[in-house]
Amino acid sequence: MKSSFEEKTLTSKTLFEGRVIDLVFEEVLLPNGKTSTREIIKHPGAVAVIPITSDGKIVMVRQFRKALERELVEIPAGKLEKGEKPELTARRELEEETGYECETLDHLISFYTSPGFADEIVHVYIAEGLSKKVNKLELDEDEFVEVIELSLEEAKQYIQEQKIYDAKTAYAVQYLELKKAMER
Amino acid sequence: MKSSFEEKTLTSKTLFEGRVIDLVFEEVLLPNGKTSTREIIKHPGAVAVIPITSDGKIVMVRQFRKALERELVEIPAGKLEKGEKPELTARRELEEETGYECETLDHLISFYTSPGFADEIVHVYIAEGLSKKVNKLELDEDEFVEVIELSLEEAKQYIQEQKIYDAKTAYAVQYLELKKAMER
Repeated sequence: MKSSFEEKTLTSKTLFEGRVIDLVFEEVLLPNGKTSTREIIKHPGAVAVIPITSDGKIVMVRQFRKALERELVEIPAGKLEKGEKPELTARRELEEETGYECETLDHLISFYTSPGFADEIVHVYIAEGLSKKVNKLELDEDEFVEVIELSLEEAKQYIQEQKIYDAKTAYAVQYLELKKAMER
Repeated sequence: MKSSFEEKTLTSKTLFEGRVIDLVFEEVLLPNGKTSTREIIKHPGAVAVIPITSDGKIVMVRQFRKALERELVEIPAGKLEKGEKPELTARRELEEETGYECETLDHLISFYTSPGFADEIVHVYIAEGLSKKVNKLELDEDEFVEVIELSLEEAKQYIQEQKIYDAKTAYAVQYLELKKAMER
């Protein structure tokens, strides 16, 4: 989309290249002719899955988040692998993190998480027709999770208690609430 | 919350200190005794406002996002200022970005945007009883926005067209949809 607010890049410097993110520092020309700087995080993107059981619960994972120095309860999610279709990543992450495979996987929405400073996008899927495929989880080497299943009321309580505390999972809980309101 | 999945910090190094974000690189001890690394973005946190007009539209702002090299339509938002209460930041950002002041401002939810790599939290408020306070916007020096008001149907169309494309605004649109479904 052509934008009248466009900021032209004057200089661009990659200050850090990591396993997960890169940091790019740019000088930009503003629409009013002045200059400013932008600090930008490059991220490969991610998928998240809202796994809904036959009795209307959401399957979530409890995990430690070093950036926050605390545990969160979140819907299953994971980074996109290079060249892998998001739908495949979604099926893989669901299975690895929860042990469930699904009959149907439908794209619900995609969104940027922090457009002010990062290009991370999350593709969100609904997984239904769940069945346990494995009992032992196949986690990444540095990944430790516990699987829990929450009813809508329990999930709303978890939000009150700040156990659920991230955007994609808050979106997922609100989605379930909307779905139930529409079914009434 | 004490966590059995806790990752102890072995070393921590601040690699970049910017205007908006800092980058911290840490070596951590995993629960299984192995070590790994974590790339962490420190952010001051932000507020976002869902301004709802008397006829049920949401006030949004169109702006250029350098991290994405494109325009997005988003609910008004801004970084927390040091020592400023989030509610005050919310009122200030609403006024600066849209020219509206509000009679009521209620906290809806707070969430971390990217818990995998960043500590950014967004506090989301509902603003109602809107009235135009100023006609000329008081924007930051490097901020250029256009104000638009969208009905629920228009906002859902904007999501389809990927004009609305970020987590907090997607949450806001779903909130409005839920609100209308509950009122029926």
